[in-house]
Amino acid sequence: MRYYFDWAASAPPDIIQPCVYFGNPSSLHKEGREAKNALEDARNRCAAVLNVKPETLFFTGTGTESNAIAILSNLLRLGQGRTISSIAEHASVSQVMETLQKMGKPTGSIAVDSFGIVTSLNLEKALGQYNDVRFCCAMAVNNETGSITDIPSLINDVIRKQTVPVHFHCDLVQSIGKIPVDISAWDIDSASISAHKLGGPRGIGLLYLRRPGIDILYKGGGQESGIRGGTENIQGALAFADCLEKYAGIEFVRENYLEAQKRMCHLVTSLLNTGRCTILPVKRELNIELFSPYILQAAFNDIPGEVMARALDDLGFAVSTGSACSSSSPERPVLTAMGIEEKLRIEGIRISQGFSTTIEEIDLLLEAISEVLKFL
Amino acid sequence: MRYYFDWAASAPPDIIQPCVYFGNPSSLHKEGREAKNALEDARNRCAAVLNVKPETLFFTGTGTESNAIAILSNLLRLGQGRTISSIAEHASVSQVMETLQKMGKPTGSIAVDSFGIVTSLNLEKALGQYNDVRFCCAMAVNNETGSITDIPSLINDVIRKQTVPVHFHCDLVQSIGKIPVDISAWDIDSASISAHKLGGPRGIGLLYLRRPGIDILYKGGGQESGIRGGTENIQGALAFADCLEKYAGIEFVRENYLEAQKRMCHLVTSLLNTGRCTILPVKRELNIELFSPYILQAAFNDIPGEVMARALDDLGFAVSTGSACSSSSPERPVLTAMGIEEKLRIEGIRISQGFSTTIEEIDLLLEAISEVLKFL
Repeated sequence: MRYYFDWAASAPPDIIQPCVYFGNPSSLHKEGREAKNALEDARNRCAAVLNVKPETLFFTGTGTESNAIAILSNLLRLGQGRTISSIAEHASVSQVMETLQKMGKPTGSIAVDSFGIVTSLNLEKALGQYNDVRFCCAMAVNNETGSITDIPSLINDVIRKQTVPVHFHCDLVQSIGKIPVDISAWDIDSASISAHKLGGPRGIGLLYLRRPGIDILYKGGGQESGIRGGTENIQGALAFADCLEKYAGIEFVRENYLEAQKRMCHLVTSLLNTGRCTILPVKRELNIELFSPYILQAAFNDIPGEVMARALDDLGFAVSTGSACSSSSPERPVLTAMGIEEKLRIEGIRISQGFSTTIEEIDLLLEAISEVLKFL
Repeated sequence: MRYYFDWAASAPPDIIQPCVYFGNPSSLHKEGREAKNALEDARNRCAAVLNVKPETLFFTGTGTESNAIAILSNLLRLGQGRTISSIAEHASVSQVMETLQKMGKPTGSIAVDSFGIVTSLNLEKALGQYNDVRFCCAMAVNNETGSITDIPSLINDVIRKQTVPVHFHCDLVQSIGKIPVDISAWDIDSASISAHKLGGPRGIGLLYLRRPGIDILYKGGGQESGIRGGTENIQGALAFADCLEKYAGIEFVRENYLEAQKRMCHLVTSLLNTGRCTILPVKRELNIELFSPYILQAAFNDIPGEVMARALDDLGFAVSTGSACSSSSPERPVLTAMGIEEKLRIEGIRISQGFSTTIEEIDLLLEAISEVLKFL
């Protein structure tokens, strides 16, 4: 028997679309038109759940690619506006920021507070420090700690108060389906989403662009209105629509948020009761509303995270250390950015649950952790 | 009943992989390791069919992305070496060349002969005209006409004779499974392949890189050895391996090539017998060995290609005009590059067959064309 607590890396898939529409949506014949209709149907359905206009959604290959398309558009933008991002972003953002820098584009960073959150004050500081910012990235839910940045406040109180327009890009990969999100009401300029974090297949992502018309590095055959070249993945798009309808509707999200919160509180309380666990960032447990109830970072005294993760794996429990995407590196740049000391960074493991995780599974995980603590 | 003659746009899918490995291959737990093993198994199987080392193959999202990764690496390359490409390339190459140009990188083009083929002479001319070429792109099989460029001769006789190293990138999207290809023996530096042209799913491509270590615009979490960021599409990779094993083995390709050639000769002869058809490029029928037997471009006197394609569609036959990827534009840049006059360009339709096309289907298509010719 296996118990899966790495939903933040990838959710167990339960949405598979049969391969029905095989025409190339760019072809004009019946097979092509049917494929095109299916693709647009998928787009409309995604747009309805996300409460955005269908023409603002573009299918991509991954959440990483969605971030890259939005951010790399700055390479082609005229003028020398600066691109800044929070210091706690996922590698798919931070690596692309490095590319901009390598290519001579001005970049900069926004500090996070000790909870891993971008505050309005920190954003204002960054905008003031550089006086040429035109593009700003911050994620809504941090993938390693679950820290929730109050995106609508940042945009409303800071970004829209600037005298020149600043584009706000938001990585929503860990947010959609997990916390209540309203892309339109939040006034986001662009955002990225990935299907496989929601039970959908790999190989399909979404990019939201409020005002298309950005410059793109590879248009290929001009698919997705010139935003993402390459033959369209219809099955993936339809599966994405299925996912969003099943798991990202506002009612479902609100209800599950509360259920996940209950399980998370139980997990946190029980972990603290072991007397050997520090919840990260420090004092998170006193501020549960600032964190996604789906992601927990926990450090066990004197046990390296990798050792704990392996021990739990042997007992049948899948947890991770940091981001799956950065598991090959022992560095924990996101935790470092939050000011977490080295010892705790090394000890940290990430426990991430999903819609279908039960309190019984949490209890089994807690038993397994007690078991490990007896021997280590 | 429908008859499909647009295999060059997308092949009917017959390879679907169940979604078994859902772990994130970058995760260290059992689910992650199983996913990683499945991914490497897929890579090994692809490498075995393609006769290359597994560590030279990188899974991407599309053939378009494979071309983009290889060509856009020139944006980050030190020095000012020039990138040139044949004037008859697919949009996924020509559009990226435009990006290089927009970003101030030196680019240039290689002419094709009247058959749409890059000859050694034309390549030598291009290399001589610019004396700073470091990266060169030419496709092996043209997607609109089927013109076959003799890649091994170009590389052996011209590229490797240069005094400075020149990287040779080859778009093999219409070649793998269609003509005998030997990436290693041909001495190609990088190449792109797509699964959906071979009966596989959308959303998965391959990039071959003889010497990895190129600079990449978005590494994300460093997946695919830093060549393509984003959570890996395991199901897609396994389906790609299935495709290649089923359709790209050298025996299968050779046998089917001859069968396809027979059907193509029958089609060409019969079309010419109507007295109203010009095979493009002009005189192709006298040089069948210079063209892929899977792709035909044919012009019917005084009938715009779009009208012919629609008429055949109404009768149940899917053919296209140009490349599916460029169907929204009436321009036919590839045919123009081959020196084909405007009237014939407008009249051209593309008939593309596949492994499972039968001579009976060809006869039915010919009947349908005769039917259309009676009324138009």
